[in-house]
Amino acid sequence: MELTAAPISLGADMHALVSNLYPICRSITGDGFRDTLWYIQKMLPLELHEVPSGSRVFDWTVPNEWNIRDAWIANDAGKRVVDFQSHNLHVVNYSAPVRRRMSLEELRPHLYSLPEHPDWIPYRTSYYRESWGFCLTHRQLQSLPDGEYDVCIDSTLAPGHLTWGELVLPGESSEEVLLSCHSCHPSLANDNLAGMAVATYLARRLAERPRRLSYRFLFIPGTIGSITWLALNRAGVGRIKHGPVLSCLGDRGSLTYKRSRRGDALIDRAASHVLRHSGEHTLLDFVPYGYDERQYCSPGFDLAVGCLTRTPNGKYPEYHTSADDLDFVTPEHLAHSLCACEAILDVLEHEAHYQNLNPYCEPQLGKRGLYDGVAGKRELPSMELALLWVLNQSDGEHGLLEIAERSGLEFNVIHNAATALRKTGLLELCGRHGARS
Amino acid sequence: MELTAAPISLGADMHALVSNLYPICRSITGDGFRDTLWYIQKMLPLELHEVPSGSRVFDWTVPNEWNIRDAWIANDAGKRVVDFQSHNLHVVNYSAPVRRRMSLEELRPHLYSLPEHPDWIPYRTSYYRESWGFCLTHRQLQSLPDGEYDVCIDSTLAPGHLTWGELVLPGESSEEVLLSCHSCHPSLANDNLAGMAVATYLARRLAERPRRLSYRFLFIPGTIGSITWLALNRAGVGRIKHGPVLSCLGDRGSLTYKRSRRGDALIDRAASHVLRHSGEHTLLDFVPYGYDERQYCSPGFDLAVGCLTRTPNGKYPEYHTSADDLDFVTPEHLAHSLCACEAILDVLEHEAHYQNLNPYCEPQLGKRGLYDGVAGKRELPSMELALLWVLNQSDGEHGLLEIAERSGLEFNVIHNAATALRKTGLLELCGRHGARS
Amino acid sequence: MELTAAPISLGADMHALVSNLYPICRSITGDGFRDTLWYIQKMLPLELHEVPSGSRVFDWTVPNEWNIRDAWIANDAGKRVVDFQSHNLHVVNYSAPVRRRMSLEELRPHLYSLPEHPDWIPYRTSYYRESWGFCLTHRQLQSLPDGEYDVCIDSTLAPGHLTWGELVLPGESSEEVLLSCHSCHPSLANDNLAGMAVATYLARRLAERPRRLSYRFLFIPGTIGSITWLALNRAGVGRIKHGPVLSCLGDRGSLTYKRSRRGDALIDRAASHVLRHSGEHTLLDFVPYGYDERQYCSPGFDLAVGCLTRTPNGKYPEYHTSADDLDFVTPEHLAHSLCACEAILDVLEHEAHYQNLNPYCEPQLGKRGLYDGVAGKRELPSMELALLWVLNQSDGEHGLLEIAERSGLEFNVIHNAATALRKTGLLELCGRHGARS
Repeated sequence: MELTAAPISLGADMHALVSNLYPICRSITGDGFRDTLWYIQKMLPLELHEVPSGSRVFDWTVPNEWNIRDAWIANDAGKRVVDFQSHNLHVVNYSAPVRRRMSLEELRPHLYSLPEHPDWIPYRTSYYRESWGFCLTHRQLQSLPDGEYDVCIDSTLAPGHLTWGELVLPGESSEEVLLSCHSCHPSLANDNLAGMAVATYLARRLAERPRRLSYRFLFIPGTIGSITWLALNRAGVGRIKHGPVLSCLGDRGSLTYKRSRRGDALIDRAASHVLRHSGEHTLLDFVPYGYDERQYCSPGFDLAVGCLTRTPNGKYPEYHTSADDLDFVTPEHLAHSLCACEAILDVLEHEAHYQNLNPYCEPQLGKRGLYDGVAGKRELPSMELALLWVLNQSDGEHGLLEIAERSGLEFNVIHNAATALRKTGLLELCGRHGARS
Repeated sequence: MELTAAPISLGADMHALVSNLYPICRSITGDGFRDTLWYIQKMLPLELHEVPSGSRVFDWTVPNEWNIRDAWIANDAGKRVVDFQSHNLHVVNYSAPVRRRMSLEELRPHLYSLPEHPDWIPYRTSYYRESWGFCLTHRQLQSLPDGEYDVCIDSTLAPGHLTWGELVLPGESSEEVLLSCHSCHPSLANDNLAGMAVATYLARRLAERPRRLSYRFLFIPGTIGSITWLALNRAGVGRIKHGPVLSCLGDRGSLTYKRSRRGDALIDRAASHVLRHSGEHTLLDFVPYGYDERQYCSPGFDLAVGCLTRTPNGKYPEYHTSADDLDFVTPEHLAHSLCACEAILDVLEHEAHYQNLNPYCEPQLGKRGLYDGVAGKRELPSMELALLWVLNQSDGEHGLLEIAERSGLEFNVIHNAATALRKTGLLELCGRHGARS
Repeated sequence: MELTAAPISLGADMHALVSNLYPICRSITGDGFRDTLWYIQKMLPLELHEVPSGSRVFDWTVPNEWNIRDAWIANDAGKRVVDFQSHNLHVVNYSAPVRRRMSLEELRPHLYSLPEHPDWIPYRTSYYRESWGFCLTHRQLQSLPDGEYDVCIDSTLAPGHLTWGELVLPGESSEEVLLSCHSCHPSLANDNLAGMAVATYLARRLAERPRRLSYRFLFIPGTIGSITWLALNRAGVGRIKHGPVLSCLGDRGSLTYKRSRRGDALIDRAASHVLRHSGEHTLLDFVPYGYDERQYCSPGFDLAVGCLTRTPNGKYPEYHTSADDLDFVTPEHLAHSLCACEAILDVLEHEAHYQNLNPYCEPQLGKRGLYDGVAGKRELPSMELALLWVLNQSDGEHGLLEIAERSGLEFNVIHNAATALRKTGLLELCGRHGARS
C-alpha cells in the first residue's frame, strides 16, 4: 500500500467537506439530515430515498421526523446560560419540545455533563423514548446558581420521513461492495463527518476507473437507517459480497479494522493484509456493538461486513463530545484513510485463483525476460521472488491474497507478478475469490 | 465465578472433616478405608459397595485386604526408634507382616527417607509386589547407630474385600457428571482428604437444588478402585458425559485444571472458562499420569474426565510427605475450590444452544425494557453487551459457553442474558450442548 | 537424538572428502562434475547417468557441456593479475571463451567484486545467457591501473552431456526417501561439498543396516539436474514419500530445516521433532527459492521434500564467496549433521500406528516387569511415562511421532516403549505412517 500516493490536495478537500457539514444539526430524521445529503449531492450523484414515519421495518417502527429551531436555558435575568445557537450538542438529540419554568432541582435530571472533562459538552440522544434534556460543560453546570430557569426546546416530533442517500457504481460483475456510513450525528467531526468525507471522495475516484465489482454507497442514519435499508432491500442483499462500514477516519490515531462476524471473509483478510503492510495498526475481532455492522452482521443476514476506523468508537477521550471538532481531524489522516480504503478495494478487485500451465518444475523465466542473467547473488529481487511464489502456489487452490500472506509480500507485488506471468502464457485465470455464495 | 459466595463457614466445616479423617490409616483395602466411608456416611447417604479379593477386573486382580494394628523398629534397649503409633506414614503402605531381628545393614534397604527434607517422613506404597518397609525422617535415619534392631509390622494381607462409596443424585436427564476422588491415602491432608471434603460438601449442596444433569460421586481407592468400578459398570459408562477428578483442593496454590484426553470436551472448556475468570490459574494438557483420569481416559473409554486441583500432584515439595498435614490446607482455599467446582457445574447445567427468533437485524430491546433510554455513552453495560452477543450468535450453532468465550464475558452473565431474552420471546432453546454421544 | 553417537572419526573422514573435492572446478556440466562423481564412486557404488546436450526436459533444454583449461587477465607487462590457476572462482562459472586485448574501461562490466568484503572473491554464474566474466577481490579490482589488458578464458561450450550420480538402497518397502544434493559448485566447501560428504557417508552407513524404506541418493547439478531427473523419471516419482535436500551441512551454525510445500508432511514433522530435541535450531516455512526443493515442490509434483542445512543459503556472509573454504566447515559439525540426518531417517523408518490390545483401563505393567515396585515418588521415570503415553494414545489414530510430540518425549523413547509393549503382546501394529498416497 503506497499510502503517500493520494494527492495531498485530496486530504484538504475532504477536510473542507467536513468543515462545511460540521455546523448542521443532524439527527436520525429531519431537515438536518436532508440538508447534509443535498450538500453531498453537489459532489456525487446520490439518490435520495424516503420512507414515511410509522413504517414497520423488521422489529422496528420508523420514528417521527425531528426538527429543531432553537433551544435554551435562561436565568432569572433572561440571559441564556445554555444556548443551542452556540453549539448544537447542547440539546439532547431528538428531544421532545418543552417550554417551562422550573427550579434547578427539577431541571437537574435533564442535564448531562462530563465531570472528568469539565470544558467539553457531551453528546447524548434519546431516540426511542420520548424525553428531553440539555448537555453542557461541567463548568457551566457548576456555575448555575439555585433558582428558577426558563427552559425552551423549540422542536417538533411529527410524522414525516426517514431519509437516506444511495449511490451505485456498477461494475462488470453484479457482485457488490457495500460502503456504508452513518450520517446522523450533529457537530462531531471524526464521528462521522470524516467517514462521510472519505466515502464521498472514494466514490468520486471509483467512478472514474474501470470496475470489476459493483459498489454501493449508503449515507444513512445509524441503526434505524441500516435496518430500514435491509428491510426494503432484502431481495438484493445476496449481491453484497464485501463491505467495510466507514467511520472515524480522520483522527491522528493509526488504522483499526474490526472483522465481520464471519471473521475470515475476504474483506477481513484483505483489510488485515493492507493494515499489516501499513505500519502501526490494530485488528479487532467482531463485537456486536459499534456501528451498522451490527445490523449487516445480524445472524439472519451475516454479511461479510467489517468496520474500518482509525481510533475506534469509545476509545478516544474526545469521542461523543464537543472535543471531536474540526481540529481533531487532519487532512493528512483523511488522505491516509482514503488510500487504505483504495488498497483494500484493490485486493477485492484483483483477488483471483490462477492455474500454472507449466506445473512440472519451474518454467525457465530467463528466456522470457523475467529473470536476471548473472546469478549467484545472496538475495533475489522481490519481483522475481513473487514470480516464483505465484508459480509455485497457482494450482487453482490458492488465491493471490493467500499467496501474498504466505510469502509476506504485498498484494500488489503478487498481483503484478501474476499479470506478468499471464502475459507470457504461463498462467491462466481459473476462478475468482471464494466468497460464500 | 463469584468465589466469595460460598459461606465462609463451609470452609471451616470442610477443614473439620479433613481433621477428623486425618488420623485414620487408610490403604486401598481394609478397615481404614471402610472407617473413612462410614464417617462420611454421617453427612451423605453414600452407598458402600464391596468386591471380594481375587476378583478379575480387566487386566487386574482385586488384591488382598490389608489391615494393620502396629509397627515399629526398636533398638537394643527395646526403645521404639520408629513407631507407627506416632505417624502412620512410618510404614510403607500395604507392607507385608514382618517380625525379625536384624542388623542396620540388613534393614537399610527397607528404609525410605528424604535427604532434601530431613524432617519430613515420605509416603511410600508397595501394593502389587509383596514387600515391607519403613519411612522415616532423614534425621531419624542418620541418628540410628549400627547394631541390631527388632522390626515388627503387625499387619495382615488376607482375602477380604475392596470397598468403595457411591452416591447418585438424579437429575431431569440421565446424562451424568462423574465426580471421583481417590480416598485411599493415609495421613495426607491435601492429597486427598481435601478432595474428599470438597466432594462431600459439593454433594450436600447439589442434593438441595434442582438438577438438570445427574451426578455420580465416587469415593474409591486410587487406580484399582476406578478400574474395578469401570469393570463392574461397563454398561452404564456411556451415561457419563463429563467429569472432573477432584484432588489436592485445599492448599494455598491457585487452581489447576488438567484437560481430559479429548482436550476440548465441554468439561474442559467449562473448567478453562471458570479458571480464566478466577484470577491466577494453570491449564494443563492431558498426561496419562496422575489420578484416576488415567483409567477414565484409557482409549477404550475415552471419557470426558479431567482433573481439578490446586497445586497439582508432584508439584509441591510437601507432596507425599508428612508435611502435607492439617496446616497445609486452609478453610479459605477449601471454600474457594468448592466455589470453582460449583461454577464449573453451573456451566454444564446451563450450556445450551438457542435460536434467535428475530434474526434479521437487532430487535428493539428498548421497548422491551432491556436497554437504557438515553444513549451516546462511551461504553455499554455488560448486561446490554451480553444481550447483543446472545442475539448475534444464537443461530443454533453456537452454545452459550462459546458465546461467553468469544465475548470475553462470564458464562453467568451470558446465561442471564439468554434467560431474559427467552422471557421476552426473542430466543428459543434449540439444543443442549454437543457432548459426544 | 544422541548427537554425540557418531564416531568422531566420521567427521574427520567427511572433512577429508570435502578437502579432496575442493580443488576441482565443477559446473553444471563438464569434466569437473564427472571427476567429482568418479571420486565419490571410490566410496559408493554410484551409477552415473548422462543425457545429451539439447535434450528437452520440461520447459528447459539441457545446455552445452562446459570445460575450462585456463583463464587470466594479464597486464601490459604480461603478468597475470587475475588467475584461474590460483582460484577457480576467479572465472564466472560457465563463461564463454574469450581472447581479447581491451582497456580497463571495456573490461570493467565483466568484473565482479564485493566492496563489503574486499578480500573475498565472489562466486558468480551465467548458465543460461552466453556471457563471460571474472570475479576478483575488491582489493584486486582497486589495484588495477588504467591501461590495456590481455583477457583470456580458455573454455569450451560445446555439445556433450549432462551427468548425474544415483544410488538406490532398496528396503522392504518400495516407498522411497529421496536424498538429493547439488554437486555443481566449484571451490565452495559448505555449499555444497559438505552436503555431498554427509550424503556419501549417510549412504555408506545406511547400506550396512536393515531398511524398511528404500533410499535414493542423487548427486546432481542444481536446478537443471533435478529438472532433468524429474523429466526422465516421471513415472517413478510417486514412490518418493519423503525427502530432505541436503546442503550447507558443515558450518558452525545450528541446524535449520525448511519445510516442504505441504508443510505438514511426515518429513516435516520428523525433522522438526529431531531439531527441537537437538538444542538451538531454526524451522522455516517453505519458500519457492533455495535449492532443488524448488523443483521437487513445484505444484505438478508437490513432493514431500524439505531442505536440511545448518546456516541456510544466503544467511552467512561467506555464502557464495571464496571465504566458504575448508576452514569454514568442521569435522564436528559434519558429524553432528550426519547424526541429525540419521535421527530423522529413524523416525521415518519407525513411524507407525499401533493398537492397544488392552484398551479398557491401563494394563498392569508391574506384573510384566515394566514398572517399578515401590511407588509414591514425585516423578515417573521417562520410560514408564512413555509406556503410559503409548498405551493411552494407541487407538490406531495416533502415530508414534504424534505421541512423541504430544508427550514432549523423544521419538526413540516412544519407539522403545512401543517395542517393549509389542513384546508383551499389549500392542499390535495396525498401520504405517499416513503418507499421502
